[in-house]
Amino acid sequence: MSDMNQWLHEKLLELNVTDSMKQPDGFTRLSYTEEEKSAHQAFRSIAEELELDVQSDQAGNLWATWMISTDAPTIATGSHLDTVHNGGGYDGAAGVLCSLASIKIMKDEGITPQKNISVVCFASEESARFGVSTIGSKAVSGLLNQDELADVPDADGITIREATEHFGLTWETFNQAERRIDELESFLELHIEQGTQIEDQGAEVGVVRGVACPIRLKVTAYGMANHTGTTPMNKRIDAFAGISPLIPFVEEQANQLNQSSDLPLVATVSTVHLKPNAMNVIPGEVQLGIDIRSVDDSLKRELADRIMTYCKNREKESKFTIEVETLVDNASIFLDEDIQQKLQKACDQTGYRAIELDSGAGHDVMNMAVKWPSGLIFIPCKEGISHHPEEYASIEDLYKGSLVIAEYLRIETGVEHENRNRNHRTS
Amino acid sequence: MSDMNQWLHEKLLELNVTDSMKQPDGFTRLSYTEEEKSAHQAFRSIAEELELDVQSDQAGNLWATWMISTDAPTIATGSHLDTVHNGGGYDGAAGVLCSLASIKIMKDEGITPQKNISVVCFASEESARFGVSTIGSKAVSGLLNQDELADVPDADGITIREATEHFGLTWETFNQAERRIDELESFLELHIEQGTQIEDQGAEVGVVRGVACPIRLKVTAYGMANHTGTTPMNKRIDAFAGISPLIPFVEEQANQLNQSSDLPLVATVSTVHLKPNAMNVIPGEVQLGIDIRSVDDSLKRELADRIMTYCKNREKESKFTIEVETLVDNASIFLDEDIQQKLQKACDQTGYRAIELDSGAGHDVMNMAVKWPSGLIFIPCKEGISHHPEEYASIEDLYKGSLVIAEYLRIETGVEHENRNRNHRTS
Repeated sequence: MSDMNQWLHEKLLELNVTDSMKQPDGFTRLSYTEEEKSAHQAFRSIAEELELDVQSDQAGNLWATWMISTDAPTIATGSHLDTVHNGGGYDGAAGVLCSLASIKIMKDEGITPQKNISVVCFASEESARFGVSTIGSKAVSGLLNQDELADVPDADGITIREATEHFGLTWETFNQAERRIDELESFLELHIEQGTQIEDQGAEVGVVRGVACPIRLKVTAYGMANHTGTTPMNKRIDAFAGISPLIPFVEEQANQLNQSSDLPLVATVSTVHLKPNAMNVIPGEVQLGIDIRSVDDSLKRELADRIMTYCKNREKESKFTIEVETLVDNASIFLDEDIQQKLQKACDQTGYRAIELDSGAGHDVMNMAVKWPSGLIFIPCKEGISHHPEEYASIEDLYKGSLVIAEYLRIETGVEHENRNRNHRTS
Repeated sequence: MSDMNQWLHEKLLELNVTDSMKQPDGFTRLSYTEEEKSAHQAFRSIAEELELDVQSDQAGNLWATWMISTDAPTIATGSHLDTVHNGGGYDGAAGVLCSLASIKIMKDEGITPQKNISVVCFASEESARFGVSTIGSKAVSGLLNQDELADVPDADGITIREATEHFGLTWETFNQAERRIDELESFLELHIEQGTQIEDQGAEVGVVRGVACPIRLKVTAYGMANHTGTTPMNKRIDAFAGISPLIPFVEEQANQLNQSSDLPLVATVSTVHLKPNAMNVIPGEVQLGIDIRSVDDSLKRELADRIMTYCKNREKESKFTIEVETLVDNASIFLDEDIQQKLQKACDQTGYRAIELDSGAGHDVMNMAVKWPSGLIFIPCKEGISHHPEEYASIEDLYKGSLVIAEYLRIETGVEHENRNRNHRTS
């Protein structure tokens, strides 16, 4: 293993606070927990080894800066280190690791950029704990509605406010993590693809054009809880039996819409809560959570409309009532075209074949893109598996990603060099 | 309000450890909790007021005995005081209350029976805490498999063994609660109907012929958890979308079987557990709990077979795997015909119109019936609602039930009197 690959391997373990990436239960580092904090400590150590200046902001994001001059503009690159329950060690960590590695590559090559470069480790990107995603990058971009969030609880009833204060932050100053527009020039995130388009198209890197933000619906059906043994079939209002045909309907309609559109749509009934969820009681209330994504916002809205119409019709023909609530409806984000071109150029110069694609998942970059010119690159991950203990990206692909970031940073910071040969690919 | 109605009203409140039966959240007295114990204390106080001898057995059941002679046989009547989560104050409590009231009626009338009469308050009838029902009456009837149960946990991980010991019992002697066959002569339970057949047929009391014991199935579908946003529709194995057509299928098939049978069948998909049940993850595993009941065991098995065939076919035509596990398959119980006749006679003599019907729910009596001649009578409850805060039975109906039990006890204990007029009905 080359020195750089060895370094990536070691630092990947460190960022995951583990001595082996093979974990049957994966990694669980929820938002603003001790586990996330331990990973942040590892980030701090590695950044300090690279002689970066590490600062924590008021939202718990870490900024590790290669400070060239206080007069020079600052460009940033990074991702996050928190995970879902039993997630993988690459979603987020890959971007943080490759950003740090790109600094190492530049430093090892004796380059001095003409701009400051910050590697940022955003806090709490995943929504697994509070149902709210990208808290850290929302704060940086000024998109966080602190009042709305303060009392949002996790499964144990601990609120975001309590969790952040327990994390060592001060809720009153949380939103001071916002950066002024002139404090940053641009932002780049690297992430694992969480899909297989790069591999399917025989490429090595993906340059992302748009990020498909979700529409999320909460569908609640109200029936009548009653004893399963004593309530005749014709006297029951079973909320679960009543609403359940909606579940395959969502899948069918998504497939149908995909046939008539160039841009893909995905839709999932991903959560269910039954009341009382007891073997001898007829379900009196069912709540389904539906996640709909496409970079084509009109396609998302078409499916949401079909679901609402379906629920209205079900309600008319049956005894139970149905409510449909829109939890989230965010327009999709298109990334900066100039940065996309520079990323394409960085791939060309490092000799890696890049494809253009869209992101089905939200990432910190979608917040940063609202305020600053921003870019997103994908590296492949095994079989597209993510949010799962089997999530995996090879050290080779992490190395490629690091080289592409380093090359992009050279272009952005005015230290571009001659076209490189492809030796890096096998190092 | 007559004295007896006033007494029933007061003692109903006492047994429910409340000062009002109107509780928006109902009553929650789970198995072997402090709440069940408080209700048991109330039972003890009332029984002692009636000058009964109260003993607790090794399983936590209470036996309040009107002891005539140690040489005389003992007949028993009773029910339970534990509830489901947010249940009503009549399921179980009605039977305990009416049994106590029947003793008061007999004592007030100066009757001395020729047999001992025990009012029994069984511990832990509901399965809401441990997924195991009728623990107390199983122990009395010698039907409890203590080894299998010891480590069964509740939602907080507390095992039955731990809960019973915390309740003040000794696990090693738990099964000594079993009564020898010669220790009891017969058993009678009164329960709220939890249905509307009595009312629908214009009657006042139900004499139960059979108890429909359930078949319970656990159906687990295994798909592949993955990111909802990045996994194209054609690359996902969504366990929830895959198995969900089974939910309306169960309802349809139950309705279909009911059309071709005289004995009713009920079937419910009453529980669901999704893994990971997170908005941005495709369901990787779904567990459905199905409860099937009929006094016609062949009808139950027919539906279970259809469900298994359906699952096999679904598995063949899709990528996910399905396991079907039979959690419970108990043959239905037919109650003692002689006791049914005596109950019918008791209804005739008190002037209440009784119908014959089956019980869709399991009760303590189904265990007692395995060992002793046993009977079950139902009184109406409002709209058949049970296991719900709105569960309700009128004081008038509780009084009717008490009179029928008292009359039955007279018949059983050899102190039968002349045909009574119908004045009791309006008292």
